[in-house]
Amino acid sequence: MARASLKEKILQEGLRVVHEKGFCASSVRDIVQAAGVPQGSFTNHFASKEAFGLEILNLYFENSQQLIHDTLLKDSKKPIKRLRAYLDAHKKMLDAGFLEKGCLYGNFTAEASENSEMIRQRLVEIYDWLRECVEYCLKAAIAAQELPESFPTKEVASFIISSLQGAMLVGKADRNTSTMQAFINVLFSNVLR
Amino acid sequence: MARASLKEKILQEGLRVVHEKGFCASSVRDIVQAAGVPQGSFTNHFASKEAFGLEILNLYFENSQQLIHDTLLKDSKKPIKRLRAYLDAHKKMLDAGFLEKGCLYGNFTAEASENSEMIRQRLVEIYDWLRECVEYCLKAAIAAQELPESFPTKEVASFIISSLQGAMLVGKADRNTSTMQAFINVLFSNVLR
Repeated sequence: MARASLKEKILQEGLRVVHEKGFCASSVRDIVQAAGVPQGSFTNHFASKEAFGLEILNLYFENSQQLIHDTLLKDSKKPIKRLRAYLDAHKKMLDAGFLEKGCLYGNFTAEASENSEMIRQRLVEIYDWLRECVEYCLKAAIAAQELPESFPTKEVASFIISSLQGAMLVGKADRNTSTMQAFINVLFSNVLR
Repeated sequence: MARASLKEKILQEGLRVVHEKGFCASSVRDIVQAAGVPQGSFTNHFASKEAFGLEILNLYFENSQQLIHDTLLKDSKKPIKRLRAYLDAHKKMLDAGFLEKGCLYGNFTAEASENSEMIRQRLVEIYDWLRECVEYCLKAAIAAQELPESFPTKEVASFIISSLQGAMLVGKADRNTSTMQAFINVLFSNVLR
């Protein structure tokens, strides 16, 4: 039990450090210092920094799944409203302190996907799942007659997930949410009709 | 002359190394080895790795300006065709070896904008210029009656630049151009009309 909670501590604090500083820029020393544990406990729990990277990516993914279930997959609400709630939640997160950090998926894609095949493959699985959840919601919108029968759900789902990443990425440089707002406006005014 | 060309060599090879491996993951040793110059010549020419990062970002920007002039700003061609040529050129670049590397702007935004205020500010200037060039082209499209008078040029320009970054970013994980193609399709079928 004690060992498990130590690992948990390294993951929680390590995720915070990596999300703030970047994966490469965060040393094992930074991570164990933030977690308040001895350096040896990192090597006890993780075979490599890459293995640790994969675990914090999975932890971040677990944390973000709740939002998807509460919005995109929530069958009791109207589909287009669910999609808007999903995107508005991202804008709120940026305002609440994620602006400078960006999205961990995007950060890992930019800096780790070239250097770790294991992390890259996990990112592809995550993007696939996100695209499927958006597509599920778009198909529900067709069924609810909020979108026309011919609406290209797969293509637009791919477009929404990558454009959302782009809006968070550019917003990270700009340090404001105007890019995110522009994406949301264009999506709902021009694409989802 | 000899010193200037040495600096040039470090910048050219350093840009290639950083674009492939990431800024943080590229050590000064990696860079001087790729350039085939002694380690001391790096410190002779650059006050810090951050100063070097800024110079390769500027070099990449110089290289990419030609494309903008040949497409978005080329008044002799029809505006919407110019925009399509600009985006198709990005898709071609991905196919020609940039897929795994991604865009240096996006990579720097993800990994360096938190750690270097100097690099972040330069990225904002570059994104601003890119948005202005796209907006210039969209305004030309209105003047040529390819878009309606009420078309929100500023908002859509911001949307195009961030979505382009997102398509290159997610494509870097996926290792294919289907995300870029989906973005181009949605843009021309649903937004620019």
